[in-house]
Amino acid sequence: MKFYDCSTAPSPRRVRIFLAEKDVRIETVQVDLRNGEQFSDAYRKINPDCVVPALQLDDGCCITEVLPICQYLEAQYPEPRLLGESDKERAQILMWNVKAEQQGLLSAADAFRNRTKGFKDRATTGPVSYAQIPELAERGRSRLEQFFRRIDTQLAANEYLAGERYSIADITALVAADFGAWIKLDIPEDAVHTRRWYEQVSARPSASA
Amino acid sequence: MKFYDCSTAPSPRRVRIFLAEKDVRIETVQVDLRNGEQFSDAYRKINPDCVVPALQLDDGCCITEVLPICQYLEAQYPEPRLLGESDKERAQILMWNVKAEQQGLLSAADAFRNRTKGFKDRATTGPVSYAQIPELAERGRSRLEQFFRRIDTQLAANEYLAGERYSIADITALVAADFGAWIKLDIPEDAVHTRRWYEQVSARPSASA
Repeated sequence: MKFYDCSTAPSPRRVRIFLAEKDVRIETVQVDLRNGEQFSDAYRKINPDCVVPALQLDDGCCITEVLPICQYLEAQYPEPRLLGESDKERAQILMWNVKAEQQGLLSAADAFRNRTKGFKDRATTGPVSYAQIPELAERGRSRLEQFFRRIDTQLAANEYLAGERYSIADITALVAADFGAWIKLDIPEDAVHTRRWYEQVSARPSASA
Repeated sequence: MKFYDCSTAPSPRRVRIFLAEKDVRIETVQVDLRNGEQFSDAYRKINPDCVVPALQLDDGCCITEVLPICQYLEAQYPEPRLLGESDKERAQILMWNVKAEQQGLLSAADAFRNRTKGFKDRATTGPVSYAQIPELAERGRSRLEQFFRRIDTQLAANEYLAGERYSIADITALVAADFGAWIKLDIPEDAVHTRRWYEQVSARPSASA
């Protein structure tokens, strides 16, 4: 297997943390996003959507998008379980992962890409160029703050986002929170349980991945 | 189990089609989105994010978001497999489902909710009110059209989106295409393979769900 990564980007970091939690090392190729390597003919063959991460299997087949990559890795390296065990636990973990993606990570991406100078006309990932929409940057910022409050109630009653087990949902929410720092958005002071959780998941060795 | 649905809405339709393919009937409760029932105290207890679908298990636990609901249903009613069988097939189906969601369905939702009169200040789902952003409606429209061209290459070489088996990825893309009709966006004439696929999946009995 070969993992296409970019060590500075939030999305592939989710896979890096996932691998670190499982203590698995696989061959890794850095894709130079800063210099547009994701748009090269060579990388388009790996992923026509021109984003990292991608996982190339030994038969040449490429899996892209974080969740399917992690699902595949979980099947190869089951322990520790990051996608849950029972049907119900698996559903709850996936549910919180979806919420962390849609309310957290996508909000942070909207906020960052729609106002950062270097992303002019690169307001979305992918091969097509889209102009920035400043109002969407504002909306993204507000939605990310809303997300931190949304999970505060959940984290008041649970050690981790989906319950008593650290999971992929925590990885996604951690990456969203650290993405928030790029737009200088802290977890609100009054979201005390989210802050407690953030300290805790950031202290895990995997967080440096 | 109890399924919280709204018979006119695209997201729960994904679950309805999923159930129809498996020929499973479960107790269904209609949530009146038009009159704001999703914001009622009673429904907030089911899903604080105020969206359908939701699946309440017999122990009272609620699973929300389409993918975890479908994953749970697949575990209870395995046949026919809509999430794949081998690790590799499961990864490919999930990958195409993510793409259909992010490039197809979210684009259609952006296009629809950011310009439709009835959704003024309701430009996103959920409990918080956000103003419409007309430029985002335009971007969503363009991205949905782009998605139809993106999958055309894949559908030139495969009967279904993720390969030779009808899957959840086809359900998501079909719902995105029908959502496109709400904003009067047809599948482009030159995306002939996408049009062939659309005819085929629309002709399945489950499509009327």
